[in-house]
Amino acid sequence: MRTRFYNARILTMKAAAPDVFQGEVYVENEKIIYVGDGKGVEMCRGHFDREIDCKGNLLMPGFKDAHTHSAMTMLRSNADDLPLSDWLNHQVFPYEAKLTPEDIYALSKLAVLEYLTSGITAAMEMYLTPETIAQAFSEMGMRLVEVGGVNNFSQSPELLEDWYQKLNGKDPLISMQLGFHAEYTCSEELIEKIADLAKKYQAPVYVHVAETADEVEGCKERYGMTPVAFLAKKGIFDYGGAGYHCVHTTPADWEIMKEKHIDVVTNPGSNTKLASGIAPLSDYLRMGIPVALGTDGPASNNALDMFREMFLATGLGKLRENNAAAVPFYEVLKMATVNGSHVMRLPDTDVLAPGKLADMIMIDLHQPNMQPLNNIAANVVYSGSKENVIMTMVAGRILYDRFDGRMNFHIGEDPEKIYADCNAIKTRIVGRS
Amino acid sequence: MRTRFYNARILTMKAAAPDVFQGEVYVENEKIIYVGDGKGVEMCRGHFDREIDCKGNLLMPGFKDAHTHSAMTMLRSNADDLPLSDWLNHQVFPYEAKLTPEDIYALSKLAVLEYLTSGITAAMEMYLTPETIAQAFSEMGMRLVEVGGVNNFSQSPELLEDWYQKLNGKDPLISMQLGFHAEYTCSEELIEKIADLAKKYQAPVYVHVAETADEVEGCKERYGMTPVAFLAKKGIFDYGGAGYHCVHTTPADWEIMKEKHIDVVTNPGSNTKLASGIAPLSDYLRMGIPVALGTDGPASNNALDMFREMFLATGLGKLRENNAAAVPFYEVLKMATVNGSHVMRLPDTDVLAPGKLADMIMIDLHQPNMQPLNNIAANVVYSGSKENVIMTMVAGRILYDRFDGRMNFHIGEDPEKIYADCNAIKTRIVGRS
Repeated sequence: MRTRFYNARILTMKAAAPDVFQGEVYVENEKIIYVGDGKGVEMCRGHFDREIDCKGNLLMPGFKDAHTHSAMTMLRSNADDLPLSDWLNHQVFPYEAKLTPEDIYALSKLAVLEYLTSGITAAMEMYLTPETIAQAFSEMGMRLVEVGGVNNFSQSPELLEDWYQKLNGKDPLISMQLGFHAEYTCSEELIEKIADLAKKYQAPVYVHVAETADEVEGCKERYGMTPVAFLAKKGIFDYGGAGYHCVHTTPADWEIMKEKHIDVVTNPGSNTKLASGIAPLSDYLRMGIPVALGTDGPASNNALDMFREMFLATGLGKLRENNAAAVPFYEVLKMATVNGSHVMRLPDTDVLAPGKLADMIMIDLHQPNMQPLNNIAANVVYSGSKENVIMTMVAGRILYDRFDGRMNFHIGEDPEKIYADCNAIKTRIVGRS
Repeated sequence: MRTRFYNARILTMKAAAPDVFQGEVYVENEKIIYVGDGKGVEMCRGHFDREIDCKGNLLMPGFKDAHTHSAMTMLRSNADDLPLSDWLNHQVFPYEAKLTPEDIYALSKLAVLEYLTSGITAAMEMYLTPETIAQAFSEMGMRLVEVGGVNNFSQSPELLEDWYQKLNGKDPLISMQLGFHAEYTCSEELIEKIADLAKKYQAPVYVHVAETADEVEGCKERYGMTPVAFLAKKGIFDYGGAGYHCVHTTPADWEIMKEKHIDVVTNPGSNTKLASGIAPLSDYLRMGIPVALGTDGPASNNALDMFREMFLATGLGKLRENNAAAVPFYEVLKMATVNGSHVMRLPDTDVLAPGKLADMIMIDLHQPNMQPLNNIAANVVYSGSKENVIMTMVAGRILYDRFDGRMNFHIGEDPEKIYADCNAIKTRIVGRS
């Protein structure tokens, strides 16, 4: 299967500064085989199975949602405007306890539909049943990086190792990384066992870190140091990894993060809605600590919308520094694409270039919010919306398009069926309809 | 012309708490004639010119964008990531000086297209040439409240009074209110002349107030008091009105605002991108000061997207108070609808009820970000996006729909023509293509 995208504007994300040019992209099976002006590749003409007129619209790498809990779609808008502890203890935990692996399979599918509408081509996921989540993503053709969510109450280092072996290397769309929930939900012994796994597999580890001020204070009381310092001391990050959130970190933490190659996944939507605080993105950028972007789960956000996250990343960064020049837009675009690929250990999904995986989206510039065409790359961050996404391609397959205006999902199932399944689960577990 | 909307969910915004019910809405010419379960109005059946199956989707009042500068579409993404003073003095003012009234006409049309895609049914506008702006809105069928933008460099009290007389009472879509740019751009004498007009017409006045900390400090240096206190003392608000932004106000200001009926129009997108600060919305709500919501102009925001503004209003309110319960979603929905109508002196556009103007939108619930249907009104604020807007009706006319998936504008002109006009203006004035 060879597809030609012509009459396109192209933002490869390879350059150090934004560079949008007019040209063509050719995709063969799951890979990109050509990106350029379309003039030097006459040999390919006539040999395409499909030719798509991009009508001057923008092709760019798909967004990487580097932290999410997909199946929490069940609790979207179920309990808002609550303090974090009430929300977790009275709304999230009791309902999650009732979820079956099959429920999580169905609820994850709903999230995948939403990712596709937002131009997300891969998600880094932490939730209860990695195998049924992998099944949902795989069946839909969506790329997934799973992360263990081990804590004192669910999963275990043994299960994690088992999944790590089972879920890696089988399906090119699915991979698994080591991970656990957080310092405050895991015993010291459990954390040590995860560190042993990191050492055994020489693998990075992923974990919620410094999401709230309370969490940091608690860790200091327990261990006399910050979560970053404590986890690093335990050897969790001896092979790198990432901290989700990293809102309340210190300059000493930043030195450790830099030294240990601990990347940041920032989740500004969730941190805003749960009033957790504003992450010091300017400091991370200044220190050269890679920052990727995630939505967090739909119970805390409540949308899986990378455009919201991009605007918040730059906007909150500007507010925090009291400086409209802080966290400039191209850095945010890198967070949402290249840096996400780096954090998720998906190096072949980062940019548009020959040999890379065809995880690519098309942004409609023929909508009023993209006009006039002053600075297209800036428009994506500052005025773009999900509505501008008119194609989401993963591994060379178009999983979502609006070429004829309609929302067309090519995921092997009717979205209405997925909605019905999820509403039934919600009604059964939450008890309202 | 009589239209029946059936098989709808309805959020009238009349109730004190969110109340979504299933039913029908009938529209006759520019007005709503019925809202209910559709059972008691057999007499109307068979007498409709048009029957629209809402497919279970949500009908609600259109959003009111209570502060904008439409024609600044020209400068969208032209100069981002700049400190406010550089942005204004080197990017905004020099280019604005080159705009003709005809340019502003064309650039305003582009903004109207974007308002419609975001479910905005009326905009409160402050810009250079009220007559050509009114022409653009009127030709497109869009509702407009213009506000004078008098300052030391452009417009004048005489012109303002002239427009006030000319633009009111002619076209039911168009009205004009007294207004001036800001304390810091107007001499004391000019402000006194505006106050004289307020007295003469017993009319409210609209003005930028306390947008930045610098502005407040400057006013204190000039007059020994805050902008709110100074303008109130000058009689500007003797017949009420509103302050745009109101980010940096004091408890003493709030008392004045309450006493003088000075409403707040908050612009969180602009305040975020320009790093101006976070408005004290919780305090305004506690004091009973009405708060409406605006996008501000597309040069500072850069989108005209009420979903972005709604999420920011609640999210920044939560961050400011360090409390996830602050600025709850239904208050935000009121800001975006009922309170906007109040501020804009458009009382017949506030809710869905018989006798009210049919300024109404349809929200698609058959999209993944609205599923499951836990709390539809909360979903609009927390997970909604422009993409969910599939109909925007103003004064009983459908100006925008996506009933067949495509973006259909019914505004008497091809959007591509408007884009081309605006790109030509941008290239001529900004000098890039």
